[in-house]
Amino acid sequence: MIKVGIIGVGTVGTSVAEILRDNADVISARAGVDIVVKSGVVKNLQKDRGLDIIITDNVDDILDDSEIDIVVELMGGVDEPFAVVKKALESGKAVVTANKALLAYHRYELQDIAKDIAFEYEASVAGGIPIISALRDGLSANHIESIVGIMNGTCNYMMTKMTDEGVAYDAILKESQELGYAEADPSFDVGGFDAAHKLLILASIAYGIDAKPEDILIEGIDKVSQDDIAFAKEFGYALKLLCIAKKDANEVELRVHAALINKDEMIAKIDGVMNAISVVGDKVGETLYYGPGAGGDATASAVVANIIDIARSGKSTPMLGFNRPMEGNKLTLKPTANIESKYYLRINVSDKAGVLAKITKIFEENSISVATMLQRPVDENSANLLIATHIAREENIQNMITILTDLDFVNSTPVMIRIV
Amino acid sequence: MIKVGIIGVGTVGTSVAEILRDNADVISARAGVDIVVKSGVVKNLQKDRGLDIIITDNVDDILDDSEIDIVVELMGGVDEPFAVVKKALESGKAVVTANKALLAYHRYELQDIAKDIAFEYEASVAGGIPIISALRDGLSANHIESIVGIMNGTCNYMMTKMTDEGVAYDAILKESQELGYAEADPSFDVGGFDAAHKLLILASIAYGIDAKPEDILIEGIDKVSQDDIAFAKEFGYALKLLCIAKKDANEVELRVHAALINKDEMIAKIDGVMNAISVVGDKVGETLYYGPGAGGDATASAVVANIIDIARSGKSTPMLGFNRPMEGNKLTLKPTANIESKYYLRINVSDKAGVLAKITKIFEENSISVATMLQRPVDENSANLLIATHIAREENIQNMITILTDLDFVNSTPVMIRIV
Repeated sequence: MIKVGIIGVGTVGTSVAEILRDNADVISARAGVDIVVKSGVVKNLQKDRGLDIIITDNVDDILDDSEIDIVVELMGGVDEPFAVVKKALESGKAVVTANKALLAYHRYELQDIAKDIAFEYEASVAGGIPIISALRDGLSANHIESIVGIMNGTCNYMMTKMTDEGVAYDAILKESQELGYAEADPSFDVGGFDAAHKLLILASIAYGIDAKPEDILIEGIDKVSQDDIAFAKEFGYALKLLCIAKKDANEVELRVHAALINKDEMIAKIDGVMNAISVVGDKVGETLYYGPGAGGDATASAVVANIIDIARSGKSTPMLGFNRPMEGNKLTLKPTANIESKYYLRINVSDKAGVLAKITKIFEENSISVATMLQRPVDENSANLLIATHIAREENIQNMITILTDLDFVNSTPVMIRIV
Repeated sequence: MIKVGIIGVGTVGTSVAEILRDNADVISARAGVDIVVKSGVVKNLQKDRGLDIIITDNVDDILDDSEIDIVVELMGGVDEPFAVVKKALESGKAVVTANKALLAYHRYELQDIAKDIAFEYEASVAGGIPIISALRDGLSANHIESIVGIMNGTCNYMMTKMTDEGVAYDAILKESQELGYAEADPSFDVGGFDAAHKLLILASIAYGIDAKPEDILIEGIDKVSQDDIAFAKEFGYALKLLCIAKKDANEVELRVHAALINKDEMIAKIDGVMNAISVVGDKVGETLYYGPGAGGDATASAVVANIIDIARSGKSTPMLGFNRPMEGNKLTLKPTANIESKYYLRINVSDKAGVLAKITKIFEENSISVATMLQRPVDENSANLLIATHIAREENIQNMITILTDLDFVNSTPVMIRIV
């Protein structure tokens, strides 16, 4: 019998205990051994969770319990769970976590600490979708050319509603908060940080790249308006918050931002709170993985799958996919300034003679070539210029936006969305 | 160093050797050990395959070679590969196969023979999509409620072309043969047998069900016409060859047939030669896996992933997902007669007074309730009745079709397509 301790019995922790109890028939048959939750750590000892397990508010009651084989870490945060997981691994307990922030900052240290102890984290990326094992095991024969993912359900729900129902950004954010899809402080989701944590985990598995959130381009969806949605529809794009990892020779670019993507791509068809990840391997071509990226039961499904993996075979795969560094050309992170993309810009200008000529001249001076341009009146005195560019360098676009913002006939900072 | 022998160096076998050679940098880093192909068995010794390996036409040169750690079986067929794989496993060699027919007939015997030796088969279902590991490992916490898959690229290509371009069945079959998507004798694909082999493999992993092709409902797409496509479009359906596994209490229904499916479902959006499998688990909800289901490199990507798995950890998971049978309510195969579905029928009738009344009376007598009915003229003397039913029993539908076929004003055997 395998005994599990859950640190953090909230929504996901409760689901983990419920699944291990309710699906014990199929789980024990698959694992070849019975798996039971012995105890759980909570903050509030008074709340009844309907579970027949020992409840404590002291983490050490699990960490020091020699009967516990597997520790499930669902505390949230970074520093405290790092200390807890470290202690668990050092005492020889296997660990399963759903904590993406912990991994975004400490995954390589944890890999070193874990050594031959199983440390699994399927639930940390895209909830119920088994993308970690698909990328780490299923596609292991491939050089990964790119990963393009919708990995924040809140943002995708908001973008879908804005597209399908013409709702304004502020209104849909309010609705998402009322539905419980968005937090009271939504910046972790709509700012792209949640998605970035997940991307960094996948980037390690695909490329062996050790990057931190502060090293990569992270932008959110908070500048998107119905003007941009209208442009997207007119030109055959869907608007999504995308996580992108792309290999270019020996460099890998990692970025999270709102993006216009051709509506015929599979990833463009993913609507609502669902997640999906498209992975292109040099041999297999494109494969795509779709499913619920959040929710107690879906996330717990992945946590329990990891528990079953460990029960079946202990540690079967290197934690981050590589048993040793790749020889020869090691991959490095591409500096953000060197990223190349097509860009869409929305520039609110005073509707005066000569403005268009001045704007186009600035594009030319910054080596940015215009592919399409639309002018749409906003009111009597101003208009929006909606411009799609050919491939340009990130540094040039950023410089140009600074220049444009300072012009007296440009009324606000231009909105820029990358075209993928 | 791990040494591999490939039995059957055709398209896939050549790709396996090429991937192990071309991607050796990333493969050895991930596996933690170098993996090389030592030798390959072919029928034609004269043909140059551009590979730096020993080529032989004698299977025993690999089976008796004590240096070979992993045998890759890519011979095709059933009886001969069964004997070869059996001998390899009995001599302690790990085996990787892409042979779905072998598994459709012998997977449980092979599981017994393999015992603690690794025997892997990711490439046998849906080519490059890692669906075996997703179902066996990633979703192991769930009771699987249903699997709905597009697992034959040839059929999906044909259905897509018939839908998008209005091409007739015979014309698109000819084109598919010219493009190499369909065989000279296409019956294995268009008859649903290829897809059925794959479904049986997934059913074992999901449900522990041991069924053979002859035990389950298998129909193809060869009766589908543009009349049916037009009906599908009008009523918001896509037409696909689907593999379906569905749990209903303690019974599992397994079936392969052309199906009308709501066009808003993710699986309905899968076009062309691509494969996709939607899996619903009781805890995770729906997840979907999309990618190339055939092709040398895509299939070889899955074969090599299995080789890497074995190099990393030997045998890490029970072959068919269960370490021991499920206690209590064992699942059994639902008899085909008891399957329930909505049905679409196309009945070519003589255009005479009273025919409609007689037909509807027969529906009533067979306990089949009509949901929608359209009459479309074919020529001066005959018309097509296009009828969608409410939920009905398979046995009743089959009986009714026999009765209808015998009527003098019914001009040919009615075409029936299930609505999913």
